[in-house]
Amino acid sequence: MGKGRMEAFSDGVLAIIITIMVLELRVPHGTELAALRPLVPVLLSYVYLGIYWNNHHHMLHAARHVSGSVLWANLHLLFWLSLVPFVTAWMGENHFASVPTALYGCVLLMAAIAYTILQRQILRAEGPGSVLATAIGNDMKGKLSPLVYITAIGAALVNPAIAEGMYVVVALVWLIPDRRIERALTARS
Amino acid sequence: MGKGRMEAFSDGVLAIIITIMVLELRVPHGTELAALRPLVPVLLSYVYLGIYWNNHHHMLHAARHVSGSVLWANLHLLFWLSLVPFVTAWMGENHFASVPTALYGCVLLMAAIAYTILQRQILRAEGPGSVLATAIGNDMKGKLSPLVYITAIGAALVNPAIAEGMYVVVALVWLIPDRRIERALTARS
Amino acid sequence: MGKGRMEAFSDGVLAIIITIMVLELRVPHGTELAALRPLVPVLLSYVYLGIYWNNHHHMLHAARHVSGSVLWANLHLLFWLSLVPFVTAWMGENHFASVPTALYGCVLLMAAIAYTILQRQILRAEGPGSVLATAIGNDMKGKLSPLVYITAIGAALVNPAIAEGMYVVVALVWLIPDRRIERALTARS
Amino acid sequence: MGKGRMEAFSDGVLAIIITIMVLELRVPHGTELAALRPLVPVLLSYVYLGIYWNNHHHMLHAARHVSGSVLWANLHLLFWLSLVPFVTAWMGENHFASVPTALYGCVLLMAAIAYTILQRQILRAEGPGSVLATAIGNDMKGKLSPLVYITAIGAALVNPAIAEGMYVVVALVWLIPDRRIERALTARS
Repeated sequence: MGKGRMEAFSDGVLAIIITIMVLELRVPHGTELAALRPLVPVLLSYVYLGIYWNNHHHMLHAARHVSGSVLWANLHLLFWLSLVPFVTAWMGENHFASVPTALYGCVLLMAAIAYTILQRQILRAEGPGSVLATAIGNDMKGKLSPLVYITAIGAALVNPAIAEGMYVVVALVWLIPDRRIERALTARS
Repeated sequence: MGKGRMEAFSDGVLAIIITIMVLELRVPHGTELAALRPLVPVLLSYVYLGIYWNNHHHMLHAARHVSGSVLWANLHLLFWLSLVPFVTAWMGENHFASVPTALYGCVLLMAAIAYTILQRQILRAEGPGSVLATAIGNDMKGKLSPLVYITAIGAALVNPAIAEGMYVVVALVWLIPDRRIERALTARS
Repeated sequence: MGKGRMEAFSDGVLAIIITIMVLELRVPHGTELAALRPLVPVLLSYVYLGIYWNNHHHMLHAARHVSGSVLWANLHLLFWLSLVPFVTAWMGENHFASVPTALYGCVLLMAAIAYTILQRQILRAEGPGSVLATAIGNDMKGKLSPLVYITAIGAALVNPAIAEGMYVVVALVWLIPDRRIERALTARS
Repeated sequence: MGKGRMEAFSDGVLAIIITIMVLELRVPHGTELAALRPLVPVLLSYVYLGIYWNNHHHMLHAARHVSGSVLWANLHLLFWLSLVPFVTAWMGENHFASVPTALYGCVLLMAAIAYTILQRQILRAEGPGSVLATAIGNDMKGKLSPLVYITAIGAALVNPAIAEGMYVVVALVWLIPDRRIERALTARS
């Protein structure tokens, strides 16, 4: 089965999510620098969605088969990602209050779990000796991120600034380009 | 004639419908679990739209020809599907009142009829001995669903909870992956 | 130069226009049939946009070359088409008042002119003996439609119902599938 | 790595930006010609976004390789472009006041810088003797535009009409079709 339409549909959904989030940016009240603080969560979420698009792109590029369960795992991931603009706006408008900051972490956690499920479904279709299986390896980043999110959700209820810092750190860790898949593909060809 | 652009256009419309529906989700008032009830119809509709996208994907994957009447049958289906977010929000905001719950069923019914029309147009272009004709077979699910919707529309006017249950059952029946087309394609090649 | 991206971009814009127009449909007040009258212009515009998408699809399918000026002629057409939901809502919410009904005709007129310009740019790149030139022929429908729109704009200021009728007639004339391009392509191959 | 998905994603984002900007156009109050003045910035931004789409299309058409850093440079460009509708509306609704007119220039400046970064990332992947490197040449327009924007931002604070004029001039200079890439591609083949 072709993976082209699944990529096109995912691109459409991600393009809408990322664009609507920026389009709905409100004008900051006041002229001092502190007025720009509500823009920070939008930037953070933009980077997160960019990372997801990038990794999604790489993973599907290396995949050769797409089954019915992969299509559903993908829809499940897109569902959680389309909640990102909502929790981002809620967190930004409430100046990083405890509950919105924790909820932001919950959506990141659910998206990370959904991504792992999608990855497993694709790997199962590819088989153990596939390029993708080699490329992903033990997947340390993928296993640690949910643990950091859970810690951050707990920390948000005590001190939201700590949770914020953790979200930024995870984003930075993922920003470092993940050349595993590119390398594995080059090694094969 | 190429089917690529019809797939791309359908993906675009479905991506917008499904994403806008989730993006417009309102924050539930209150913190008890009952406050989350308005989210249920959105989840249900998300699953319905996912099923339509999935089946649309499979049907067009197996199709080889696309005629002018197929393009119009497809636009007709997309019209009814783009009414889904509206009736979903109306049903959710009125806590499953009779009339909105019945109207929700009407849109599902019209979409099901539109899908059947699209399927017939494609089958007519493919011919009786085609892979798609074999794969679809007697199409029990496709024939029974409209009957369930009609019953549910009537039931909604008496007791909306019964209609709700019927919508959920139909979604679950369709969620069971429809491997007919995949099997027929594999058998051919 | 490839025409794939121009098709993809046009599909994206048309998918957004057509979906947003339906998504923004308001609930009719009252339960009698007359309450459904504001839905009529949306249906009419849906058909018009469907016709444009269909013809755009056929014309580009037959085209082999896409130049820089074709890209701009296409953007010009998309600009007028993206004004359709706005004038549709204005006409529907004002119950077919004179000025909104005339303005609706103006946008249809400008879109028709933009389509003709696009067609000429493509024909110029294709050359006089091309499949597309043969298929389009003397283009009676394309030449008469603007004249009907101009008459309708004038009529709208006297009696909007006459203009409405004219818009419906033009839509019906275009709905009759235009098999010229399909026939010319079949004749060639 | 394939460039298809990056093109598709960019097309999606640009289609949303350009369509939403036109869809949100407000009805001008009053019937005299001056009432149409708030429409001017939307037309200007439409042309700017059209130019970006056009040049993006040409540049990627000539590119053969797409790396991870190109994907991020592209997301960076799309971020600034998705701020265009916001600053356009702000400038139009405030009748070309100083600060919004200067901010409009800032977004144009940032988008121009982002485009230059994207171009450099692509050129680095292509190598010095590539078709694209020959086509772009010394890139006078690309180097002068940011300087004009900076001048316009300063001028906006003194007299917004001068800045407006400068934005129009830059758009007109870019509107002249850039046949360098088309010519270089033809020369090669």
